[in-house]
Amino acid sequence: MHTAEEIYNTVNQSIDKIDWGINPPGLYAPIAYVLALGGKRIRPSLLLMASNLFTDNLQAAINPAIAIEIFHNFTLLHDDIMDKAPLRRKQATVHVKWDENTAILSGDAMLIKAYEYMATMPADKLGECLRIFSKTALEVCEGQQYDMDFEKLETVSQDDYLEMIRLKTAVLLGASLQIGAIIGRANKTDAQLLYDFGIYIGLAFQLKDDLLDVYADSTKFGKQIGGDILCNKKTFLLITALNNADKNTKIELNAWLTKKEFNPQEKINALISIYNKTSVKTSCEKKMDEYFTLALSCLDKINIPSHKKQVLFTTANQLMKREV
Amino acid sequence: MHTAEEIYNTVNQSIDKIDWGINPPGLYAPIAYVLALGGKRIRPSLLLMASNLFTDNLQAAINPAIAIEIFHNFTLLHDDIMDKAPLRRKQATVHVKWDENTAILSGDAMLIKAYEYMATMPADKLGECLRIFSKTALEVCEGQQYDMDFEKLETVSQDDYLEMIRLKTAVLLGASLQIGAIIGRANKTDAQLLYDFGIYIGLAFQLKDDLLDVYADSTKFGKQIGGDILCNKKTFLLITALNNADKNTKIELNAWLTKKEFNPQEKINALISIYNKTSVKTSCEKKMDEYFTLALSCLDKINIPSHKKQVLFTTANQLMKREV
Repeated sequence: MHTAEEIYNTVNQSIDKIDWGINPPGLYAPIAYVLALGGKRIRPSLLLMASNLFTDNLQAAINPAIAIEIFHNFTLLHDDIMDKAPLRRKQATVHVKWDENTAILSGDAMLIKAYEYMATMPADKLGECLRIFSKTALEVCEGQQYDMDFEKLETVSQDDYLEMIRLKTAVLLGASLQIGAIIGRANKTDAQLLYDFGIYIGLAFQLKDDLLDVYADSTKFGKQIGGDILCNKKTFLLITALNNADKNTKIELNAWLTKKEFNPQEKINALISIYNKTSVKTSCEKKMDEYFTLALSCLDKINIPSHKKQVLFTTANQLMKREV
Repeated sequence: MHTAEEIYNTVNQSIDKIDWGINPPGLYAPIAYVLALGGKRIRPSLLLMASNLFTDNLQAAINPAIAIEIFHNFTLLHDDIMDKAPLRRKQATVHVKWDENTAILSGDAMLIKAYEYMATMPADKLGECLRIFSKTALEVCEGQQYDMDFEKLETVSQDDYLEMIRLKTAVLLGASLQIGAIIGRANKTDAQLLYDFGIYIGLAFQLKDDLLDVYADSTKFGKQIGGDILCNKKTFLLITALNNADKNTKIELNAWLTKKEFNPQEKINALISIYNKTSVKTSCEKKMDEYFTLALSCLDKINIPSHKKQVLFTTANQLMKREV
């Protein structure tokens, strides 16, 4: 069994060694730039950890793990164009550092590269894993489309929001784990349990993200507190506040959401005060804990000695307890 | 053996039958729209024709043929964003009919769909064909990047231009034929000869496009005569004119290229007159014929009875003789 740290290092070293190609530089330099920005490498690590539950030899899983990380970074790159985001991991986004055409085309090349890496897996597992990967990749696009659609809607239900984050975030964690398990030659049931574990962790992970935007310790949090609030992002918190608020609070909340000119800190403070009044923090934490418990029950059912599951348990816990 | 018409009909019927999915409509409606715009369906037809050289049963090749057509339409969709093109096949482009974000994301989903269709081929050929497909897809991106880079350069050599169109246009024709051959269980040599045939046809095809922009019969040509001239597109004709022109003609040509305000028809007439003076039509036709001859010699070497090659010969001829 490999430790989480060993797996993280394997992922990073494998990514660092990639020769992205040189010409034309306008196509390949942005790809190298994006992958060098770092990140937690959660998805490829989960893929390798899932494989490691069933085999000690991770060689066959490394390229598919890289594929997942390239795919994830491709989605960030194209999402950043669509969201007009200036920064990613505190560095200029590709469409800002280069231009929008470069960001579109380099992203396209990354998606192709992801498939190229995925396709190097053992031939007898290729068809099955590609089906999972393509299905998941389409779902991630669907999630992004719903996310953009929601911006234009006045109200979004909790259920619709949870379905959106399932598609946009959770399925890729699930697929990473499932593909890792399949490459490790797990049986169908265990591979499915790992998929479900990933879905629940992914849902909890995104709710944690929503919480951190508002309730993070600003001395430790990497981003600006209240970023979601300032752009009226329909997070679980805002949706729940709109649901839970009494008539007057709803009027106050809607006034802030429609105000064109305001002092940013004042808006953040006002919304946090509404959030506190409507108990959205508790609601969100409760939902998050529910998903986390469901995730652990999936992990529990996987038919391998429980000490082997420790690394996934610890990783899931860290994702839930993170402060950044 | 199937006729070209039967193959074209098979392709179209297969595409018409595709269920693109419904929700979210913002993601899937543009895909259905783009594929319904039609087109010559050259690439999937070539794939099926190549397969048909070696087998009568085309069933296994149909989904890969669709994959190639989806991929091709994906490149058109994203290229149209980058080129800010308002029209495609006389209809509004996706980024105009919907918006740019929709065009980016639907294009991404199309690329994934292309892989999804490609991955349904016989398992024992999947790895090899995916390697060819991904390599080719990356080359097409490289070609598009070079094409955009060339717009910003003052001079481009004939060789660099030919390499650009090899990447942007020819390799996908080559790969379509090669993948079709492999699925038809051709041997390596014959599959490679079909790839080379496709490369040469592709190069000739693009040169024909360059010629048609200027020398098409305007009563039959679907697009505006001189479109490339008006946007200073560095086609084989313009590059050759800049190469062949004497000092005074070069000055005249550069004056037209840098002029910000002009009467469009006057500019078109002036450039055509320079093209005639510098014999670029002859140069381009000569190059095109060279490639066409090379293509036919590849076709000739394929180790099957020559009557079977007739359909590819006829199709290649039609592509060269087309007036639109």
